Amino acid sequence: MGNRTILDKSAILNMVFQNRLNALRKIMPAHNLDSLLLSSREDIFYYTGYKTPEGNLLAIGGAGKPQLFVSPLDNDAEKIKGVNLVYFQKSDQLTKLLKNQNVGYDENSLITGRFLNLHKFHIRLKKASELIKNPREIKDQEEIENIKQAINITKKVLEKTDFYNKSEISVANRIEAGFKLAGTDKAFDTIIANGTSSIHHMPDNTKIKSSKPTIFDLGAKYNWYCSDVTRTYLGKSGKFWKNVWDDVKEMQEEIIEAVRPGVSMQDLQNLYKSISEKKKYKVHHYFGHGIGLDVHEQITSPLKENMVITVEPGVYLKYKGGVRIEDMVLVKKGRPVVLSSKIRY
Amino acid sequence: MGNRTILDKSAILNMVFQNRLNALRKIMPAHNLDSLLLSSREDIFYYTGYKTPEGNLLAIGGAGKPQLFVSPLDNDAEKIKGVNLVYFQKSDQLTKLLKNQNVGYDENSLITGRFLNLHKFHIRLKKASELIKNPREIKDQEEIENIKQAINITKKVLEKTDFYNKSEISVANRIEAGFKLAGTDKAFDTIIANGTSSIHHMPDNTKIKSSKPTIFDLGAKYNWYCSDVTRTYLGKSGKFWKNVWDDVKEMQEEIIEAVRPGVSMQDLQNLYKSISEKKKYKVHHYFGHGIGLDVHEQITSPLKENMVITVEPGVYLKYKGGVRIEDMVLVKKGRPVVLSSKIRY
Repeated sequence: MGNRTILDKSAILNMVFQNRLNALRKIMPAHNLDSLLLSSREDIFYYTGYKTPEGNLLAIGGAGKPQLFVSPLDNDAEKIKGVNLVYFQKSDQLTKLLKNQNVGYDENSLITGRFLNLHKFHIRLKKASELIKNPREIKDQEEIENIKQAINITKKVLEKTDFYNKSEISVANRIEAGFKLAGTDKAFDTIIANGTSSIHHMPDNTKIKSSKPTIFDLGAKYNWYCSDVTRTYLGKSGKFWKNVWDDVKEMQEEIIEAVRPGVSMQDLQNLYKSISEKKKYKVHHYFGHGIGLDVHEQITSPLKENMVITVEPGVYLKYKGGVRIEDMVLVKKGRPVVLSSKIRY
Repeated sequence: MGNRTILDKSAILNMVFQNRLNALRKIMPAHNLDSLLLSSREDIFYYTGYKTPEGNLLAIGGAGKPQLFVSPLDNDAEKIKGVNLVYFQKSDQLTKLLKNQNVGYDENSLITGRFLNLHKFHIRLKKASELIKNPREIKDQEEIENIKQAINITKKVLEKTDFYNKSEISVANRIEAGFKLAGTDKAFDTIIANGTSSIHHMPDNTKIKSSKPTIFDLGAKYNWYCSDVTRTYLGKSGKFWKNVWDDVKEMQEEIIEAVRPGVSMQDLQNLYKSISEKKKYKVHHYFGHGIGLDVHEQITSPLKENMVITVEPGVYLKYKGGVRIEDMVLVKKGRPVVLSSKIRY
């Protein structure tokens, strides 16, 4: 029975990957592409289930099994089903395979050295990053479950973190160790910002004082799916920051309220701008972003059911500090679902 | 006095970066380059001291301060001395700056999308990865100290790791949590391989059995400098593997013995091949590599004093397991110094 179950699960998984490949192949002809060349680890994982090391490539033709090109040191790849495995020492096979074809490649992850090598061999290369990542925009149930797990771990680790009178960097290290001990990894470098307006601040030796607001922007990665959540704890920073915090929370709720199928990311950004202006705040960054295998993912169309985005308005005062609140939101036909609402504010 | 010391230290640091820039500028004319465009985080750190987030660029002209191009969210960069800071929203400044110039770029880190954007603006781009990384090959005293610290942390974490009857992945997570709690980070994904011949094996749910050899290939990163050490613990795997282990250790010692100024990496690889053949073992990979800010660094000339390399011979038997032993070696005029020899074998 045990074996039977495993076989069934693997059969289902293979169907999932097959469906994803089909989705991609369906949009290739309209772009006049014979093949796609994938170079990001997340894309290769999405279309094959293989948690590949850096540097491998996946070539997807119009039909048949994709070709997975791996380093000769990466013998783990032999376990992967549904692909033809090619070791890179035979890399003329890649140029032979793609020669005289129209090949869509991911211009956001392929390094230039490799691009030029392929270019030399008369392969007609076309930018196709948006197309390759397009099927990833809508999440299936298993992907949503992975994201929820990543959020749960973030919650557990953040809520047991002591931070006042410790340095930003030591607290960040403790959080990232917590992710590891929970069997997972950070989704990105943890931001801890006490009394600074630098939006992508790297934690340093600053002692965290309760007299200033402290921004925690963090996330874990579960089965390669990311969480990305921001909380701002006010400590004893006083009434001024409490008012800012209330304003940011109110703005966030108003944006989340507007999240539904058919609304575009630009619509939501315009809303963010208009409510910020009403409150006399400057807009420093985008209101949020798509999320999944990558922390920042494209959303190319108006929102559709089962897309996942973050909503993260922020207010910053130069050299004084800032308040940012970020939650992860699942788009639904009815009201949106705030996946991260249980992480204490 | 306190302030005085800080000022002196920062002045010395600025001299270090100035010297590194000068070393680079000295080799630019021979390659007919007006500017260099750096895109790897490690290169930007090496030439400015800035622990930059991903995605920033550094343009180095023939004289004057380099231009650091950063995201508008990265206000931390304002603290960096010795550079002119440009926020990316004004990115036409990059194309204006480089227009009609011969620009050397790092083809191993610049993504194709960015390359094509610059190409469009009639900037004459030339591959210059090797040149940009050339001054990094020889380490100064502070760099060697950082590497020693990274090795020390690796030693402490590895030596308190219990592993038999635990899964590979749980042990890898515990090791990487240990690096975090020691205030540092992993230099690369930890390899733990029990009874597998896959050389870059990713740890999985395999329970580590003492009846098979277990390879630990791991390293911490201290102040961005990497360690990279491999140990193979035999447990109760028996006489056969003990003999293999002795052979690998003997080969490693013979290669290390040959490390000195004037000897090339290819010489050492030839030596590795010839002693492996004498013992009837197949050679599966390179004997070792340069190391520093990156785990794998180029060594383009015969060895020179104060280069740091790893020496890591290995023997693998398909589906059965393997033995690899890796140490970090500092090149000296007299005998080489094995920096990692205190990590128990």
